Amino acid sequence: MDVEADLSALQEYLEVEGIDGYCIDDDATDSDQRYVSGFTAPDPYQTVVTGDGVHLLVSGLEYGRADADANADSVTRRAAYDYQNLAAEYGRYGAKIRALEAFLADHDVESVAVPRNFPTGTADGLRERGLTVTVEPDGIVEGIRATKTEWEIDRIATTQRANEAAMATAEELIAEADVDDGVLVHDGDPLTSERVKEEIEITLLRHGCGLDETIVACGADGADPHDRGSGPLRADELIVIDIFPRDKESGYFGDLTRTFARGDPDEEAQRRYEVTERAFEAALETVEAGVTGAAVHDAACDVIEEAGYETLRSDPSTETGFIHSTGHGVGLDIHEEPSVSPAGGELEAGHVITIEPGIYDPAVGGVRIEDLVVVTAEGYDNLTDYPVALEPVSE
Amino acid sequence: MDVEADLSALQEYLEVEGIDGYCIDDDATDSDQRYVSGFTAPDPYQTVVTGDGVHLLVSGLEYGRADADANADSVTRRAAYDYQNLAAEYGRYGAKIRALEAFLADHDVESVAVPRNFPTGTADGLRERGLTVTVEPDGIVEGIRATKTEWEIDRIATTQRANEAAMATAEELIAEADVDDGVLVHDGDPLTSERVKEEIEITLLRHGCGLDETIVACGADGADPHDRGSGPLRADELIVIDIFPRDKESGYFGDLTRTFARGDPDEEAQRRYEVTERAFEAALETVEAGVTGAAVHDAACDVIEEAGYETLRSDPSTETGFIHSTGHGVGLDIHEEPSVSPAGGELEAGHVITIEPGIYDPAVGGVRIEDLVVVTAEGYDNLTDYPVALEPVSE
Repeated sequence: MDVEADLSALQEYLEVEGIDGYCIDDDATDSDQRYVSGFTAPDPYQTVVTGDGVHLLVSGLEYGRADADANADSVTRRAAYDYQNLAAEYGRYGAKIRALEAFLADHDVESVAVPRNFPTGTADGLRERGLTVTVEPDGIVEGIRATKTEWEIDRIATTQRANEAAMATAEELIAEADVDDGVLVHDGDPLTSERVKEEIEITLLRHGCGLDETIVACGADGADPHDRGSGPLRADELIVIDIFPRDKESGYFGDLTRTFARGDPDEEAQRRYEVTERAFEAALETVEAGVTGAAVHDAACDVIEEAGYETLRSDPSTETGFIHSTGHGVGLDIHEEPSVSPAGGELEAGHVITIEPGIYDPAVGGVRIEDLVVVTAEGYDNLTDYPVALEPVSE
Repeated sequence: MDVEADLSALQEYLEVEGIDGYCIDDDATDSDQRYVSGFTAPDPYQTVVTGDGVHLLVSGLEYGRADADANADSVTRRAAYDYQNLAAEYGRYGAKIRALEAFLADHDVESVAVPRNFPTGTADGLRERGLTVTVEPDGIVEGIRATKTEWEIDRIATTQRANEAAMATAEELIAEADVDDGVLVHDGDPLTSERVKEEIEITLLRHGCGLDETIVACGADGADPHDRGSGPLRADELIVIDIFPRDKESGYFGDLTRTFARGDPDEEAQRRYEVTERAFEAALETVEAGVTGAAVHDAACDVIEEAGYETLRSDPSTETGFIHSTGHGVGLDIHEEPSVSPAGGELEAGHVITIEPGIYDPAVGGVRIEDLVVVTAEGYDNLTDYPVALEPVSE
């Protein structure tokens, strides 16, 4: 299962630095671990990458599944290093270090590079037993992960399909609500942010996706890009809906934002929607392999600044206007490489990125429009198929 | 929000060892970080515990919320250490280390103890800048977390209420299914493990809880305690349902297992159910502050062995019978201290533990019965209110 990772850049690094192996000691909630091992387990396991390939050290409980499923050249169970007896003599931690040491020795590894988040307990334990442990400073695995295979793009597209279904559920609830005294009402009760989020989550669940958090933020709530939103949704106001689900099976995320308004949003709100949509389109038009993330971000800033709103480019301390970056990579993490921001380097074919400019002001509310696209040699393929419109429509 | 942690054991350790502070560098998915800081954030932040109290270093984005919500004696934003300029000069990692160094210096910390999973990148970075970094070997914070406050017990009980509602949903589906050619049928379709899990999850969601995985395992699937179960549920066979949701707001878990059978389970299956129920009751009767987890585990083993089944105590290599431990602590992690196993030390008032013996054999299926209880001076309070019966009942 999972992606067949091309780790040659990592292996080159090891060769150039004269380091024997690259080691990860984590559970599969660490996306580098999941990606490199092609395996998921709830408890920590150890992966070492050498010039020979990828090798896993797992508990007996996980061995059968790892041997069958992992993208590894070899899988070893800890029992091969007499783990139970070691645990009786040295405790679980002492046994873990000794089993890992023996496993590394079996793969001729005396020096290891490790990611920044590698456990200090393991690093110091190996050092005490004579191994050299060096932190790999450039995040090579994150760099490899940024470029998706066809298989990964299919997985992300599948999650985005579920995401569109969830957005449609939310849009329909808002479109069909009655308006009573300025508040949206559904089935006799005020339609709240919480209620819409619950229906989003149920739709995702029925499509095999989960999510930790989602944003349904009305009015001033929506003007803070990190506010999840709460309470009754109101007519005539901007409602930002940002959904970032994860497929439970594949682990790949989707990401989608739309902004709606029921009733009669004022002219300034409508204008901001139109400017955001133009910035969104300008950024999309810029996307192409070889262009920098910074250039894509600049394209969005140009439109927004020309329309008279601040950006972090025109005023680094502004708290209104366009106050975040244009996008980010999406994969096994919801935020990953590459960056579509002033710091964003060259985009490459196979990068999967969001394009999501927005304009914010507590006095007016927030607007954000976001699609998820894959960078190609000629431009991009849009992984999103969802209309862009301020007025919510019921199917 | 969150628990007011009693960190005196940690502060004593620092004093005895002559170490200035205890530092955590993680996001709130790390339960020690969440517990000690009384704060949650999706990106890593730094907590240091000194003799003076708990101090947080957070990004500007999180400062307002941390200052209002965290159980901290002080909250500092990274900008206080000129983080943006440091990042421009040294990169994000170099800036993080330098800001953390300055923050620690402000709290007179030149030597830090860290948990085993502390990032090696941060540890080595601080060491290069002259600080002493030592791994704290005993898991003192996990030990502190094992004893729950009244507030925490209320949170766990709330999650367990949601869990009971989810179990009732599952039981009802099974009770109301028709039987067609040995297979349970609901609304004309075979009632599958997947369908029951989806309804469990939707019920939990409506109660503010989420879960990553749940077990609905029929027949031979149920004989492997780690099998999540799949496919149509069958009549006359044992169906193990194990649900371990987490409250989205509080972060506290619940845990509940019942075993059901529709139709006519054979005599051996019924006998195993009765023996498991007796082992469950015997273990519960043993629970009391001052008794060891090992003694509680022994009480369950006694009943199961006397009935003629193997346990890991009678045969450490057995693959059938009672092949796991009797229970574990539950809190911000689904598996935490203390252990109710051969390695289990003295139970203390305020420990929240599962009691969950089971008997397994692929030829017969699996039985497991599990409640969640809080240890008291006189025995225990059961946080679970759910009938124990093999035959499923519809309300």
